[in-house]
Amino acid sequence: MYRIGIDLGGTKTAAALIDENNRIINKLSLPTEPDKGNDNVSQNIAALVFELCRQAGIKPADAERMGIAAPGAIDSDTGYIERAHNLKMEHYPLVDRVRELTGIADIRIENDANAAALGEAAAGAAKGTACSVMVTLGTGVGGGFIIDGKVFSGFNHIGGEFGHMVIEYNGRRCNCGRRGCWEAYSSATALVKRTKEAMEENPDSLMHDVAKELGKVNGKVSFIAARRGDKAAEAVVDEYVSYLCCGIVNVINMLQPEVLCLGGGISNEGDGLMIPLQKKIDEEIFVRGIGRTTEIRIARLANDAGLIGAANL
Amino acid sequence: MYRIGIDLGGTKTAAALIDENNRIINKLSLPTEPDKGNDNVSQNIAALVFELCRQAGIKPADAERMGIAAPGAIDSDTGYIERAHNLKMEHYPLVDRVRELTGIADIRIENDANAAALGEAAAGAAKGTACSVMVTLGTGVGGGFIIDGKVFSGFNHIGGEFGHMVIEYNGRRCNCGRRGCWEAYSSATALVKRTKEAMEENPDSLMHDVAKELGKVNGKVSFIAARRGDKAAEAVVDEYVSYLCCGIVNVINMLQPEVLCLGGGISNEGDGLMIPLQKKIDEEIFVRGIGRTTEIRIARLANDAGLIGAANL
Repeated sequence: MYRIGIDLGGTKTAAALIDENNRIINKLSLPTEPDKGNDNVSQNIAALVFELCRQAGIKPADAERMGIAAPGAIDSDTGYIERAHNLKMEHYPLVDRVRELTGIADIRIENDANAAALGEAAAGAAKGTACSVMVTLGTGVGGGFIIDGKVFSGFNHIGGEFGHMVIEYNGRRCNCGRRGCWEAYSSATALVKRTKEAMEENPDSLMHDVAKELGKVNGKVSFIAARRGDKAAEAVVDEYVSYLCCGIVNVINMLQPEVLCLGGGISNEGDGLMIPLQKKIDEEIFVRGIGRTTEIRIARLANDAGLIGAANL
Repeated sequence: MYRIGIDLGGTKTAAALIDENNRIINKLSLPTEPDKGNDNVSQNIAALVFELCRQAGIKPADAERMGIAAPGAIDSDTGYIERAHNLKMEHYPLVDRVRELTGIADIRIENDANAAALGEAAAGAAKGTACSVMVTLGTGVGGGFIIDGKVFSGFNHIGGEFGHMVIEYNGRRCNCGRRGCWEAYSSATALVKRTKEAMEENPDSLMHDVAKELGKVNGKVSFIAARRGDKAAEAVVDEYVSYLCCGIVNVINMLQPEVLCLGGGISNEGDGLMIPLQKKIDEEIFVRGIGRTTEIRIARLANDAGLIGAANL
């Protein structure tokens, strides 16, 4: 029996046919084109569903169910996208529209960060766990919390905003209006900003050479320069890892997930990130030596996490 | 059908017979006397159970079930107290011992902060909610997280440590070894410390008069002096409320509980605390104007929360 997963983003809409073992059988995508109106977004989703089914030789109504991962504030009870700036949607009944267009009865919807966390729990780094948290280190710091194979996002479905936990009272300004949010320290955006500052302060740093090689200043620059022994880059990485550790230990002390997976661009640093991070976490964690502790793992499904999570809603 | 709730503390052990409407039918207590050994603690619990049942005219084995709220690190799967400094217990099979002594088959155990949160969810300020958080502002900052009438404390049962969430990176020292934990700002202990500092800095402050009237410097001094218009006291209260708000908004952004109840001594300040706190929370909360938001309420069961929570494990 097949399920359909949709990953609806501001620029691209992806759709996948997924089997009972959470394997992706086929995957297609289209531009989202939010400027053409909300109903056009729904129609693009329907077009992808019909084409996926045509290629697989099934009817949409034969799909066991369908799930949609979408950005912004989602009401997963009503199926409305309450607010999603990059989809230009406000209180839009996406699930109802897509149901009318496809004839699929069972359509579910969830915030994309939560869906990605569910994907990793269903088929990725947190597979087989009773509870897990996924933290995505990208443009922002996203998060999702999974208990017994289900997303937990609070009574109003807008929880899981781990990035908007203040870790430095009166600290750096955050886009959300607060000061000192984890996101302002541990996102890729924050790392790039700190890297640029350190490069300005250290004109002789190897970070300048690395940035030239890469053609830009991105989240990799400080990690690469640090591996080449550059002191200023080491300081940037060390500070980044310290703040990341702070937020992770906060989450562990509160929720004690069996696995906490790290996703997003920065998680691709692998051991360069994970070894110093694990060392700091072991030093800071609240209750030591009692039972098992949370395992920190790198997410495994990359861009497929949202699709697989959506199919598992 | 009756259930028995036990609230095991470092100095006192309380026991209650509780009916199906979560009303306390009878309540007794004994000194805990941890110095006399772990088995003596178990025997005191059994003595309380037998006396409760004798007074009610039932046999212990006729109780539907029994629950124990205990301090420290509890393994609620095995029934062991893994570590509880003020009970002088380390890896002690409390549930097995009490079962042997009382003949009650179904005995459950949980950390006392979690049990209190469950009590408020079952019969107090969070009654009827799908998910709630309780934060206790006492000697420390304790916490408990309830989903669908059950304690959530992570895969290893040591979660719910909201007080050990860092809100000020590299901030005040905390007993747990970290720096900047919420507990170091929002516990009654922290408020008393700040009050004393402000009194030293402000020899003319009304806080000195209030402390004389109360016979000591406690968590009430700054609140009372602030109500009388003392500027230094207002600054202490304002700072306290700001840090409290910071931690509460962090919890809401992550978990979006339907109700967040505040317990412990400081919560007795009522409107003097709640009005400025709610104002700050409304300013800081992440997603505004979308659906319902978490309600902040004062806990209602006081010392009975642990007993009622234990009976509902």
